[in-house]
Amino acid sequence: MKPDVTTELYPPARLARVREATAEAGLGALLLTPGPDLRYATGYDAIQLERLTCLVVPADGDPFLVVPRLELAAAQASPAGALGVEMVPWEETDDPYALVARRLGGGIDAVGVADRMWAVMALRFRDAMPQARQVPAGRVMGRLRIRKSPAEVAALREAGAAIDRVHRQVPAMLKAGRTEREVGRDIAEAIVAEGHARVDFVIVGSGPNAASPHHELSDRVIRPGDPVVVDIGGTMPSGYCSDETRNYCVGEPPADYLAYYEVLRRAQEAACRAVRPGVTPEAVDAAAREIIAEAGYGEHFIHRTGHGIGLETHEDPYIVAGNTEPLEPGMAFSVEPGIYPGAHGARIEDIVVCTEDGFESMNHVDRDLVVVD
Amino acid sequence: MKPDVTTELYPPARLARVREATAEAGLGALLLTPGPDLRYATGYDAIQLERLTCLVVPADGDPFLVVPRLELAAAQASPAGALGVEMVPWEETDDPYALVARRLGGGIDAVGVADRMWAVMALRFRDAMPQARQVPAGRVMGRLRIRKSPAEVAALREAGAAIDRVHRQVPAMLKAGRTEREVGRDIAEAIVAEGHARVDFVIVGSGPNAASPHHELSDRVIRPGDPVVVDIGGTMPSGYCSDETRNYCVGEPPADYLAYYEVLRRAQEAACRAVRPGVTPEAVDAAAREIIAEAGYGEHFIHRTGHGIGLETHEDPYIVAGNTEPLEPGMAFSVEPGIYPGAHGARIEDIVVCTEDGFESMNHVDRDLVVVD
Repeated sequence: MKPDVTTELYPPARLARVREATAEAGLGALLLTPGPDLRYATGYDAIQLERLTCLVVPADGDPFLVVPRLELAAAQASPAGALGVEMVPWEETDDPYALVARRLGGGIDAVGVADRMWAVMALRFRDAMPQARQVPAGRVMGRLRIRKSPAEVAALREAGAAIDRVHRQVPAMLKAGRTEREVGRDIAEAIVAEGHARVDFVIVGSGPNAASPHHELSDRVIRPGDPVVVDIGGTMPSGYCSDETRNYCVGEPPADYLAYYEVLRRAQEAACRAVRPGVTPEAVDAAAREIIAEAGYGEHFIHRTGHGIGLETHEDPYIVAGNTEPLEPGMAFSVEPGIYPGAHGARIEDIVVCTEDGFESMNHVDRDLVVVD
Repeated sequence: MKPDVTTELYPPARLARVREATAEAGLGALLLTPGPDLRYATGYDAIQLERLTCLVVPADGDPFLVVPRLELAAAQASPAGALGVEMVPWEETDDPYALVARRLGGGIDAVGVADRMWAVMALRFRDAMPQARQVPAGRVMGRLRIRKSPAEVAALREAGAAIDRVHRQVPAMLKAGRTEREVGRDIAEAIVAEGHARVDFVIVGSGPNAASPHHELSDRVIRPGDPVVVDIGGTMPSGYCSDETRNYCVGEPPADYLAYYEVLRRAQEAACRAVRPGVTPEAVDAAAREIIAEAGYGEHFIHRTGHGIGLETHEDPYIVAGNTEPLEPGMAFSVEPGIYPGAHGARIEDIVVCTEDGFESMNHVDRDLVVVD
């Protein structure tokens, strides 16, 4: 990825915004270990290791990056180095938690810890800063990350196009007599070949396995007449994720399957069309759920309608009953109702972004059932 | 992996041992989310997701697995299902943290949380069980996991043999004119082809990049006369990890490099030979460090000598100054001193297991410098 693209996606001014938001949330500091929050704040794609790397963002002072001496060169070469963030290296026998506590001083009574920080690290911070009550940093970072910038939407579009290209190759990979695992291996290769930096998941659910939404891969041999759910995704070099589900049938589909597939198709489209600013996530969920329930399949739609996506495959906003925070332009999430009667099942998933007056889909592969010979 | 092998590696009796150790540590319960502790306790290789999956091990009661309804089928089909652990599914709109707190009751004043649990989950548990002080579950699990069973040593031996086979292919991949990234891609493919389930890391450090211990891959073109550090590892289907570093030179090595490589070779061998029950990790570290320091390269050995390995690439025991807990038979760790003068660098790494009277190496590829034409 070119440096200018990095700067658009991870603008240097963002760190100051994180600091303001930390102060607004009434927190004395934010502690961001390697993961999506650190990357969002600085562009630094650091490795999570047992040695502490932590960006400390005081509400009231300059941010600094505590980094093992070993990682100093990598940190300096990263976008965090380009931001001019002060680097504070620590040696193999130092206590980096005490170091952070000393630099922050004793006046902090609430601190945000990265949602994905390892608990063992959060507990070390708790012991080093006993007066500072810990809250999830997501309360601050989530508010920022949930509205994607135009550059982030472009990154999601690029990810969507890449996974579209993989789905277009799936019909050639699916054949009766092959196992789910064999097909999955081809798909994983294609995910990387089409530009992802990493494969995140490959679900190939055939026959009854299609009825288990989180089935991954098995040695089941795909048979003539099997419906197959293919739900796949990866992370692009930009850091942004793809996630798309389409449905295939090897040979003639069962009649009962065709009946509910048509209902699912309508439900997924209705949920997408419900997306616009001011609508609640639970209303989007209901838009799909009502159509499925009215057609008599309500008990077979056993999960929420979607999840936010960005630097993580699953993040805010969740499209689920009870989530009443209105959608805003720039929010990105999956719309993926499913119907799972048991002998088989189906799910259709697109990533959509809420626009000023509706939605834009990141995925463009046809949503109709694909029958493979 | 065959079911009988699973049972040997993850014996059903282990969960009772975890429960005893929880009681011995004075904890009311252990909370194990997906990760190495959960896998060690049950064999269940669960996916870490934002929806809570958690094995609850009360000191004083039967363990139970809290699992999203969506994951129930996978959990039942996993080794945890075969153990007869009670499954407690929760629905999309339930609060699973409150569910755990209710089932445990209010009488627990200390609880162990998995070291790698996401902080956001540990904080939800803190709020749901405010009377229970959280401590790292590693205090319990680490004591169990640090001594490998014969089946675990066999799994590490299998991982060591797999990564040995990859290193034997490296000379054919290294050529002046290729980039580190191109070589790294070939190595990643070979790691999977030789039996790993997953690539964990691929370091190809050529020329000055060899002097940065945690350099990974770059677009640097390898030139004639370049020393190259290749440090690679992956996770086997068993769950156990490999990690091995060897050194290559494309064409004639620089004279100063050959001088310190010989010192490093002796230091790494001396550290391995220092391993036996009763010796401290810091004494193993010192065995390597003294030889390097005496030869005048002390300031260029900038990291600890090693890290434990098992279900994680980095775990206890760490081979570092200050670690005075005597080695015991079954402890497995890397021995990997390095010398990094700047223009280039070298590191030699084997995984060794402490035996009744010495050590066994999991790696058998020759440790001498390999000169590639």
